[in-house]
Amino acid sequence: MSGAPRLDFWFEFASTYSYPAAMRIAPLAKAAGVALRWRPFLLGPIFQASGWSDSPFNIYPAKGRYMWRDLARICDALELPLTRPSVFPQNTLGAARVALVALSEGWGEDFCRAVYATEFGKGGDIGSPQAVADVIGALGKDAAAVQARAQSDEIKAALRAQTGEAQRLGIFGAPSFVTADEELFWGNDRLEAAIAWTKC
Amino acid sequence: MSGAPRLDFWFEFASTYSYPAAMRIAPLAKAAGVALRWRPFLLGPIFQASGWSDSPFNIYPAKGRYMWRDLARICDALELPLTRPSVFPQNTLGAARVALVALSEGWGEDFCRAVYATEFGKGGDIGSPQAVADVIGALGKDAAAVQARAQSDEIKAALRAQTGEAQRLGIFGAPSFVTADEELFWGNDRLEAAIAWTKC
Repeated sequence: MSGAPRLDFWFEFASTYSYPAAMRIAPLAKAAGVALRWRPFLLGPIFQASGWSDSPFNIYPAKGRYMWRDLARICDALELPLTRPSVFPQNTLGAARVALVALSEGWGEDFCRAVYATEFGKGGDIGSPQAVADVIGALGKDAAAVQARAQSDEIKAALRAQTGEAQRLGIFGAPSFVTADEELFWGNDRLEAAIAWTKC
Repeated sequence: MSGAPRLDFWFEFASTYSYPAAMRIAPLAKAAGVALRWRPFLLGPIFQASGWSDSPFNIYPAKGRYMWRDLARICDALELPLTRPSVFPQNTLGAARVALVALSEGWGEDFCRAVYATEFGKGGDIGSPQAVADVIGALGKDAAAVQARAQSDEIKAALRAQTGEAQRLGIFGAPSFVTADEELFWGNDRLEAAIAWTKC
């Protein structure tokens, strides 16, 4: 896809609406001839800058109740399984670091989709290192080696830098989509518009 | 449209995304055979319950910057004029009360669209009673009489009751769409889904 217009897909594993976006973005981008970059980041530091120490869906109950219902309608329409996890939001630091390793090794997209399927499809807790190890193992990779690399200074710094870049781009939620000319689109419901913009 | 399935359109004149929704909802509902009820309410009391004394688009600057850009893209696509008002959010109490009068007299939809056109199409301040009077006059009505009725105890109580009902329905933002079975949809981007749900 060299020469293809590029779209960055910014996602956070704790983000509910990133789940349907992650599940549907690859075929949409491919059909449009758009080159995707998967860019995990952490919303925690960005929310903290807004004075939030929890998900806004927990802080504002009406918004949270609506989100779960809206997400159920969206997943129904996509025929995606949805199981509300007992832990929300989840600690996604470990999974995000592994995602950076996996993306650098060429199996990152499968890993990311599998994390979302575990978390929101099955209601698992991907904050548990064992749950992440299970996802890695199911993809035929050496979980111990991958998780060790994910704890390296290089990967820790890379995730910090990526989160800093998200903030610089004006990202305040997930999923977000950013074109090469830094046009920002926020939300699963803006995916089609982001792809259309990228193609122009 | 008696017997037609009903959809309630909940809007707040201060809400930016209510502008494109107000401009496009009537033909969409008509084409789908859906009977619309226009239901103005005030977001202020609902935001105050969340601890906000200003628009979240002002409280969270990254979200605000994004919203104005996103709204510009949406209005471009709809060929709707957009002029960012110097006052935001605006004091919509007077306009909302007049909307209740106008809706009870059969000219409410035109009034609501004209308010949005003044506020976001031309960047006017509909918090000014004179601006509201100008909108009423342009529709061939007696502004003084209408604005007097809008200050009656009956209309004041009706707007309070309507805002209370919005809160009871779980509404936390505008525009919102609520079906007869109280299914809630939030946001201009959910209008099509709300109409499709209503038709089922």
